[in-house]
Amino acid sequence: MSRTITVAAAQLGPIQKAEGRDVVVPRMLRLLERAHQRGAEVVVFPELALTTFFPRWYHEDLNEADHWYETSLPSPATQPLFDAIRKYGLTVYLGYAELVNDTDAQGVVRKRRFNTSVIIAPSGEIVLKYRKVHLPGHAEYASHRAVQHLEKRYFEVGDLGFPVVRAPVGAAGQPVNLGMLICNDRRWPEAWRVLGLQQVELVMLGYNTPAMNQDNKGFEAHHLRVLHSQLAIQSGCYQNACFGVAVAKAGKEDGHELFGHSIIVNPQGEIIALAATWDDELIVADCNLDLCELGRTTVFNFEKHRRPEAYGRIVEQTGSVPPAVWTPSR
Amino acid sequence: MSRTITVAAAQLGPIQKAEGRDVVVPRMLRLLERAHQRGAEVVVFPELALTTFFPRWYHEDLNEADHWYETSLPSPATQPLFDAIRKYGLTVYLGYAELVNDTDAQGVVRKRRFNTSVIIAPSGEIVLKYRKVHLPGHAEYASHRAVQHLEKRYFEVGDLGFPVVRAPVGAAGQPVNLGMLICNDRRWPEAWRVLGLQQVELVMLGYNTPAMNQDNKGFEAHHLRVLHSQLAIQSGCYQNACFGVAVAKAGKEDGHELFGHSIIVNPQGEIIALAATWDDELIVADCNLDLCELGRTTVFNFEKHRRPEAYGRIVEQTGSVPPAVWTPSR
Repeated sequence: MSRTITVAAAQLGPIQKAEGRDVVVPRMLRLLERAHQRGAEVVVFPELALTTFFPRWYHEDLNEADHWYETSLPSPATQPLFDAIRKYGLTVYLGYAELVNDTDAQGVVRKRRFNTSVIIAPSGEIVLKYRKVHLPGHAEYASHRAVQHLEKRYFEVGDLGFPVVRAPVGAAGQPVNLGMLICNDRRWPEAWRVLGLQQVELVMLGYNTPAMNQDNKGFEAHHLRVLHSQLAIQSGCYQNACFGVAVAKAGKEDGHELFGHSIIVNPQGEIIALAATWDDELIVADCNLDLCELGRTTVFNFEKHRRPEAYGRIVEQTGSVPPAVWTPSR
Repeated sequence: MSRTITVAAAQLGPIQKAEGRDVVVPRMLRLLERAHQRGAEVVVFPELALTTFFPRWYHEDLNEADHWYETSLPSPATQPLFDAIRKYGLTVYLGYAELVNDTDAQGVVRKRRFNTSVIIAPSGEIVLKYRKVHLPGHAEYASHRAVQHLEKRYFEVGDLGFPVVRAPVGAAGQPVNLGMLICNDRRWPEAWRVLGLQQVELVMLGYNTPAMNQDNKGFEAHHLRVLHSQLAIQSGCYQNACFGVAVAKAGKEDGHELFGHSIIVNPQGEIIALAATWDDELIVADCNLDLCELGRTTVFNFEKHRRPEAYGRIVEQTGSVPPAVWTPSR
């Protein structure tokens, strides 16, 4: 019997700065209903799905930005999502900004902020939490940029590693090895490999990616941004013998363009479903998990073929170093 | 002033088992002459460029296979290549089977065999040597396979790491950070990253890749083999902000098909030149090395964005491990 699950990418169109969760949650509910109608067992929403991509807006005082964050899940505003998840028997990936109030031994409360995603079980329980490790952008206001990208200001680096969990998915409860990435993580093969080394079968990832690289000094053609995203996801899936569901927040948020092109990718690196709008859109694909086994036992049989003794620099260095210089002897 | 170099991929068509270096070297000389005519400063030949892809042929006694290996470079048979390199002022990547006679303290000679590539300077000097780390296939005769892939029999795992060197290239002598991979290495993002951590600008790699995966139990469509190769190379170049020149031995060797599709790829992950035959063919592209600097200082500024503390499994594990199991509490 083949291990096939049906997965959906629930792409969201733009969320304007002025739009609250009361606008977004009903849109997400419609996507959950549609996913159920199309037979999906797993639904993946974007990164920071409940709000606009607020790291483009600067606040001198971080406390002024607290309204973008969730302090609990579910909350009154997000409870309808959990109700729908239970009603339809879905497994759901949700990206959001997480605010934690940590109290130290002296009773002093310290606010901690993360760019977070969770996997929610059909029962409404949280199966797994992930906090984004690869935060792009910068921490201080950058006057050379037309648009800010302040993730390093608004979030701490994730402190949960890259966990994978085997959990039953959907109403049928078929067990699947599940892992998560968030946005910029997908460009880093190290992140994919750490998931692959835990036999991940389905990588869920949401993103908010500006259609233009504001840091690129004009060298990088607009359309290459999509190529880069897809290359990183397709190679990550191929090289780790897993499926990937990569889901955009897309379109113009207060005039600032995010690209769409949400995709579902198989372990051969093929795009098997593609969103073609920059709006709320659901794409669905059947994923035969036996294909993961194929890659994992042949070309990417890690035990047989990897050579960690040659990979030392990956963990011994953060930045790059200049190579040795060779000069001709004659 | 832009740092532009002109690089060529010198794809070779098939070399039959019965064909010796006397057949191959003249073909390579024609490609070097053609590269010179087209203004190339760097020329990349395939893996095991001087012979057929002999790991498909089984020998019980390894000593019977010695004639496939080089014991010195140059040798009388390969001297004409070195003469042409000097005449045209080229920097050349050459892949070959290397046989080393190691004498131990007791005077006992031990034969060591590697799948090797070298960078040859315009002067004829060897600039850098690399020995393939990721050997695919198997060490013993595999009766379930129609075609053998005995690299693990014929070669030891490379013992030189993934070195990068800064060396002047071509007649103009512009310094470039040069690195090498061989064939199956290209599928392993760890290998690319170790080069990237040494600021590689140009990755040269040769390959002999069967058009069908004999280990795939029929799941893997023929054409996906090319997609896999290109995905791995394009993402490797993008994620490490370097150019790549990937060069095939192509066509039917004694009835066994190797795919072609040699490519030159830029740091944006774009294929900027593509070989379209399965025969001897030269493709040439100008590579503006300033594009490497762009990637290295923005999205892939490793110092700013990498998080090695989350990458431990990459060097702590060889094979994969099963993930934790989660069960619903209700």
